[in-house]
Amino acid sequence: MALIVQKFGGTSVKDRTRIFNVARIVMDTRNAGNDVVVVVSAQGDTTDDLIAKAGEISINPSQREMDMLLATGEQISISLLAMALQELGVPAISLTGWQAGFVTDRAYTKARIKRLDTERVESELARNRVVVVAGFQGLNRSEDVTTLGRGGSDTSAVALAAALHADRCQIFTDVEGVFTADPRKIRKARKLKEITFDEMLELATSGAQVLNNRSVELAKKYNVELEVISSINPVPGTVVKEEADMEGMLIKGVAKDTNVAVISILGVPDVPGMSFKVFSLLGQRNINVDIILQSSGQDGHKDLIFTVPRDDGDNAVSILNTNSARFGGGKIILRKNIAKVSIVGAGMQSHAGVAATMFEALAAQNINIHMISTSEIKISVIIDEKQADRAVEAIHDAFIH
Amino acid sequence: MALIVQKFGGTSVKDRTRIFNVARIVMDTRNAGNDVVVVVSAQGDTTDDLIAKAGEISINPSQREMDMLLATGEQISISLLAMALQELGVPAISLTGWQAGFVTDRAYTKARIKRLDTERVESELARNRVVVVAGFQGLNRSEDVTTLGRGGSDTSAVALAAALHADRCQIFTDVEGVFTADPRKIRKARKLKEITFDEMLELATSGAQVLNNRSVELAKKYNVELEVISSINPVPGTVVKEEADMEGMLIKGVAKDTNVAVISILGVPDVPGMSFKVFSLLGQRNINVDIILQSSGQDGHKDLIFTVPRDDGDNAVSILNTNSARFGGGKIILRKNIAKVSIVGAGMQSHAGVAATMFEALAAQNINIHMISTSEIKISVIIDEKQADRAVEAIHDAFIH
Repeated sequence: MALIVQKFGGTSVKDRTRIFNVARIVMDTRNAGNDVVVVVSAQGDTTDDLIAKAGEISINPSQREMDMLLATGEQISISLLAMALQELGVPAISLTGWQAGFVTDRAYTKARIKRLDTERVESELARNRVVVVAGFQGLNRSEDVTTLGRGGSDTSAVALAAALHADRCQIFTDVEGVFTADPRKIRKARKLKEITFDEMLELATSGAQVLNNRSVELAKKYNVELEVISSINPVPGTVVKEEADMEGMLIKGVAKDTNVAVISILGVPDVPGMSFKVFSLLGQRNINVDIILQSSGQDGHKDLIFTVPRDDGDNAVSILNTNSARFGGGKIILRKNIAKVSIVGAGMQSHAGVAATMFEALAAQNINIHMISTSEIKISVIIDEKQADRAVEAIHDAFIH
Repeated sequence: MALIVQKFGGTSVKDRTRIFNVARIVMDTRNAGNDVVVVVSAQGDTTDDLIAKAGEISINPSQREMDMLLATGEQISISLLAMALQELGVPAISLTGWQAGFVTDRAYTKARIKRLDTERVESELARNRVVVVAGFQGLNRSEDVTTLGRGGSDTSAVALAAALHADRCQIFTDVEGVFTADPRKIRKARKLKEITFDEMLELATSGAQVLNNRSVELAKKYNVELEVISSINPVPGTVVKEEADMEGMLIKGVAKDTNVAVISILGVPDVPGMSFKVFSLLGQRNINVDIILQSSGQDGHKDLIFTVPRDDGDNAVSILNTNSARFGGGKIILRKNIAKVSIVGAGMQSHAGVAATMFEALAAQNINIHMISTSEIKISVIIDEKQADRAVEAIHDAFIH
């Protein structure tokens, strides 16, 4: 007998039909001889509706009161799902985040889990019940309700699986698993049977939005085997784990990220400390710099070129302009119509020529590469946005047959 | 500086406008130098909407899960009201029933308060905050959410006022106070400045639905001064307390109750134990018998005539018919088209002729009295329903000038 944690998002429990669909998946898992803990999010648009209600009262409501308000969304879902399970004859009980033992820090709206007291969950499992837990929420040391931020239910599920030493944590979504590329755009995209935590993390930061990154980090830390699986068609999905079967694949995925902008600072004095001045300015404002390129110095000057999230582009440029005297007063240029295309795969560590194959595929399409960045299991290129979809397809064709 | 508990019902917080209206009442109370604890119900139709959601899942949902579901209604209200108070510059914090220390028994959907741990509420008051508490809810010893049943927010407010030794508990409603008769029907109906707990209880059981009876009983038990007051027009309302100013009034109110039916059992053997047999049968089915009349026995037989809530009339008659052999097999007659009209007033204890004045007023209108019941502070008569409004007006005219 195994213990399985199953997590269902808001769309999966948005109405009566979907709630019973979830209840039947849980029932089947239980009837197969497993103990089941279920984590659910708020129904459909509930969270957005609650945010709108608060917006009518204040444009900047207290974060503590926001968490008090938003936590009701999951509380509604868990009680309805527990009722549906009981209706199907499955003994079940719902538990809020605080009842399930989630103790968090004080950071309202983006709290981090500090501790998980699983006593209540374990005693309900011992009573042979399916335990339905509210995701996304916890309680801080002052006994005030906190929420974990968007995507927090994934984190709740992984944390429960880790604390309970569950055999598997299944994340049910609207897609059937992790694909080698976006299956809505790339016809030949293939569902992966397995992928490593590191590959999943690199894919997520490269624009593939299947799993919340924080939950993958947590799963890696506690070695919790994840499965990404569809709640509509629950055939086996993609398993995310420490060591994945290579399946003869050099790369696991091609991802596109368009939330990227390139900033160039021309004529920066080529003396020590200049880069630090620039990037510490941006770091203080919580602007993440991703790829950095530095031209070789001429005449005692160099050019500094780097990417930031496109949303932060204007803000970054205005900060840099205000302080430009500190790094030579050179011209600052912002380019938004670009995209980052990445390939990810643990296999590339031991295979030469992966980068060459990628660049060759782009060259054959006449796609110009502006910047390149590599890690052990990822290669990213910055290209023009309008060529990005074509680039993804060409690279996918070159690697995945 | 006084400590005031203010309770607002669902209609009073149903939307943005009404929430800010409540927030301003609370702010004014605080600016007048008082500490304020606010108890709120769920917004408008929220509770009914949640009940409908559960109804889609199950026709007989688990009561524990119902309470988990329904408790979200008040949690939404408290957070929104706390935000509105903060928006007006009033420091405020919301607390759920369990955060506010409501410990109840295990009776889901109709729990009773066992204990109130006011530590958190007091510490928030000490920090100079308005404390906004979710009415209607608590936590049982298993740390599961319970609700107190309909009207439970009034009870929450009175319990808080008692435990905190508040100077007053104000129950805000849609009416301006307690009237000598229903002001929508009796033009000369007068708002009472004061009324005793006992009078209020008798009025409530006589059909006047201003305050939840359980909350008045609790207020009487702990001697909590209540004020019934309008949230739309918060001029002084009616104060309910142990000893009320007589205001020169013999009676405090005339009430009509149409949820009454009369059952007659003819030819019951005039031997000991017969009444017990009849009424224990009904008691076992939770049918409350109110007024009882017994004809003097003739030929060894008597007639038994009594009232029950009209909703229970058919059910009562079918139970009696099934068992009629046990009390002589006599004919059982049900009459539904009747009403109970009552006058209530502590003043009648020391004044002779109150009943006479009431009966005279009815006689002058040619209204026939079927049954009479009296207590120390109440006289009720059973008359034909179609004459009830005229009766209330005639009696009101006779006593209240």
